[in-house]
Amino acid sequence: MMMSSSAQDTAEVETLTASIKAKGDEIRSLKEGGADKESLGPTIAELVALKADFERVTGSPFDTPKKTKAKKTAPADDKKGGNASKADQQASRRITPRAENFSQWYLDIIAASEMTENSPTKGCMVIRPWGMAIWDAFKDDMDKRIKTYDVDNAYFPLLIPQSFLTKEAEHVDGFAKECAVVTHHRLCKSDDGTLIPDPEAKLEEPLVVRPTSETVIWTMYRKWIDSYRDLPLKLNQWANVVRWEMRTRPLLRSAEFLWQEGHTAHATKEEALSCAQEMLVEYSTACRETLALPTVMGVKSPKERFAGADETYTIEALMQNGWALQSGTSHFLGQNFARAFEVYYQTPDEKRELVWATSWGVTTRLMGAMVMTHSDDFGLRLPPAVAPKQVVIVPITKGPGEDTDLVNKAVDGVVDQLKAAGVRVKVDERPNMRPGAKYFQWEAKGVPLPVELGPKNPKAGVAIVLKKKGGGGRQSFHSDRREFRVLHRATA
Amino acid sequence: MMMSSSAQDTAEVETLTASIKAKGDEIRSLKEGGADKESLGPTIAELVALKADFERVTGSPFDTPKKTKAKKTAPADDKKGGNASKADQQASRRITPRAENFSQWYLDIIAASEMTENSPTKGCMVIRPWGMAIWDAFKDDMDKRIKTYDVDNAYFPLLIPQSFLTKEAEHVDGFAKECAVVTHHRLCKSDDGTLIPDPEAKLEEPLVVRPTSETVIWTMYRKWIDSYRDLPLKLNQWANVVRWEMRTRPLLRSAEFLWQEGHTAHATKEEALSCAQEMLVEYSTACRETLALPTVMGVKSPKERFAGADETYTIEALMQNGWALQSGTSHFLGQNFARAFEVYYQTPDEKRELVWATSWGVTTRLMGAMVMTHSDDFGLRLPPAVAPKQVVIVPITKGPGEDTDLVNKAVDGVVDQLKAAGVRVKVDERPNMRPGAKYFQWEAKGVPLPVELGPKNPKAGVAIVLKKKGGGGRQSFHSDRREFRVLHRATA
Repeated sequence: MMMSSSAQDTAEVETLTASIKAKGDEIRSLKEGGADKESLGPTIAELVALKADFERVTGSPFDTPKKTKAKKTAPADDKKGGNASKADQQASRRITPRAENFSQWYLDIIAASEMTENSPTKGCMVIRPWGMAIWDAFKDDMDKRIKTYDVDNAYFPLLIPQSFLTKEAEHVDGFAKECAVVTHHRLCKSDDGTLIPDPEAKLEEPLVVRPTSETVIWTMYRKWIDSYRDLPLKLNQWANVVRWEMRTRPLLRSAEFLWQEGHTAHATKEEALSCAQEMLVEYSTACRETLALPTVMGVKSPKERFAGADETYTIEALMQNGWALQSGTSHFLGQNFARAFEVYYQTPDEKRELVWATSWGVTTRLMGAMVMTHSDDFGLRLPPAVAPKQVVIVPITKGPGEDTDLVNKAVDGVVDQLKAAGVRVKVDERPNMRPGAKYFQWEAKGVPLPVELGPKNPKAGVAIVLKKKGGGGRQSFHSDRREFRVLHRATA
Repeated sequence: MMMSSSAQDTAEVETLTASIKAKGDEIRSLKEGGADKESLGPTIAELVALKADFERVTGSPFDTPKKTKAKKTAPADDKKGGNASKADQQASRRITPRAENFSQWYLDIIAASEMTENSPTKGCMVIRPWGMAIWDAFKDDMDKRIKTYDVDNAYFPLLIPQSFLTKEAEHVDGFAKECAVVTHHRLCKSDDGTLIPDPEAKLEEPLVVRPTSETVIWTMYRKWIDSYRDLPLKLNQWANVVRWEMRTRPLLRSAEFLWQEGHTAHATKEEALSCAQEMLVEYSTACRETLALPTVMGVKSPKERFAGADETYTIEALMQNGWALQSGTSHFLGQNFARAFEVYYQTPDEKRELVWATSWGVTTRLMGAMVMTHSDDFGLRLPPAVAPKQVVIVPITKGPGEDTDLVNKAVDGVVDQLKAAGVRVKVDERPNMRPGAKYFQWEAKGVPLPVELGPKNPKAGVAIVLKKKGGGGRQSFHSDRREFRVLHRATA
């Protein structure tokens, strides 16, 4: 429901590519014709604008030269090499500065923070624990919000009969074209011993992996809705969906992503319209309160509307480089799906009417928006509400001794206090890894408050050190009660 | 991971069907030959045993006569008929007694409780809100338990390149045969205007909808594991999986189901073995504490083992009719996947070793086990820990008046007290529905404590009525504080 159709994008990209090339040719021929810099100005400005459009649509700069892979400053990733763990290598990964290349910076932040990784299935991502914990925290919060609107969770099948996609005319144009199609239900060995789809297990009707669930849900709504007393019917599902994508980008655009899809049926147009608008406002509030993501609410133009909707509302977030990123949508579906799937209800005075509908969703893309809103050249920055760890303590010790005992005791004390206050705290006790590398890594992963805790000197007790990002300075506190309160407040 | 392969089942069912038919023929010919009842005894016992085997394997009795659909006592489901809502119709649905037909009783319980419903996609279920809330409650509890073992959640792609399934020899035999195969990434219009898989969008390599995720996870583990310091690596995923099934049964056996799959990698055999065993014990505890499901822990025979495992541990639950139902499995995978996917780690003394592995899962099938353990001829019975509503109050009022005010005030008071105590309570205020029908419905849905609250007489105040199941008697309490405490205790 959220992304505009790829077909439309593809056409746009092709047009833009052609225009950029034409504009380049024009400039070259003007130059060859002896035009001076001043007279070229407007044409160059047009080229720049076209390239900006291209980057907005595709998420990548036009014709970026390919990066060499040798970005690591750590020893090469050689299985026979030194005993560096993956964590060590991770810690020393360099992040391209935003000013140098915004798109590469984004990819580097995702990699350095270990949120997601490309999977062996082209176009599909692996969500690693750090990214998963962020999504789960957002999901838990969003789920509670959705339930306050008397919406119940349910689950509908992943695979949808192909014919269902054809029932609502606009819907088929929007989705049928780019989706994964299941045609067989078995593999078998071929003559050369490799596996192939078993010709004898061909499905009578192909199944489509859901790109969104309107069609299957409306088939069920037809069974469940008879009377005005069965309305409103408000269901939500947390699920995975697949929309085939040629150009993918971690979190922002991938063939499979995770989302929440709400689907409601109402007796009146007014009720459906206000449900669609209400959910948009709730998305905006959730984004602000959990992801610290300010968004602008608006309405999509007819061309950008969801396939099958009468009106599509959207929240758009503003990225650091000026991009506006669609971050959630809510659709007023009118009676389109009710008509296509013949969902009528009987009014109190026994008339037969079509029901009115909405659907609305937010996806794992929101994590991409969060990255581009808050991160910096040292790594991800996480809002405390969704940070898997809000405080990470790196103890500074030098083997057994009085100092180490002092530090360990202080660490235990801080952890107890923070846990009691409900703060998600972790102590990084990995042996064989330098404290600096640990600190660097937690900073890249966006922990709101990574701190070092070590002996200042044996007499003076224990110091909490808050470093400036990127190792550019430090501030020490004594670990007496007042300073712990500072630490605690800083994470609230 | 959990269900045994369908291929194996299919063969077994065919063998059993043939044996049952042969045994039937044998008995008939013995009868025709004049054999008396006594001499037939052993042969009949053999037939009964074969039929019991058939029912155990398929979940359905052998050759059950087809039920007529006319089971409703309510007015027929006619869109032009009376103004009965779906809820009214639901409330009056009859449940086949267990003693009459256990398999039909199970189907009736699922339908009457509105846990799941067949979907338009053959073999796939819709999980309705009541079933979803039960699964979500179990899932939340299980997720917390899993995390106490330092297991992180992650997400791996739904679609797996076909070639991955071939890497581990036993695994391919176990899973490649019955799974959904994606061969195209686009639909297009055919000459006659219908949609077909676009011949130009045929995938170079087919993708399989995950039947389990070992293969794709081990591909990632190869990237993530280098050193002993990267171990143990313990990940879990909550996901949907697809295993093609010809004969399905709500919750117990369906083409798509929901589950949790844990996948761990360890430096030593001992550690992996104890992880696999530890998780089995945790499953057993979770089943007992949340679903009130006692299970027996055991080891599968080599024939029943998970495809690719060295050892499969299982918990089996005992159903009311004597069936043992596999309710969760934990696999010690040895070094099989590490070998197939070349996952080595460097030991502290710089040797290169294969890692050791486990995987373990529980599925939505557990809800089926819960149904068959606790329900009765009046409906589902839900353990309070997972009941979406623990108390439902049906107010008994007769339009505006002093009595109604009294009842409403009493309802508010009970609700406040129960909510304050953390009890999930609902007031069923549906107009135009008889209290008896409401009560009947909540009983069928398995609410631990459905109660009626109405005026005893205007002077005596308000009475709480606890009826016996199936309308077989009632017990009234006064709504003074002592009785509220009784109500409260009853739900704790």
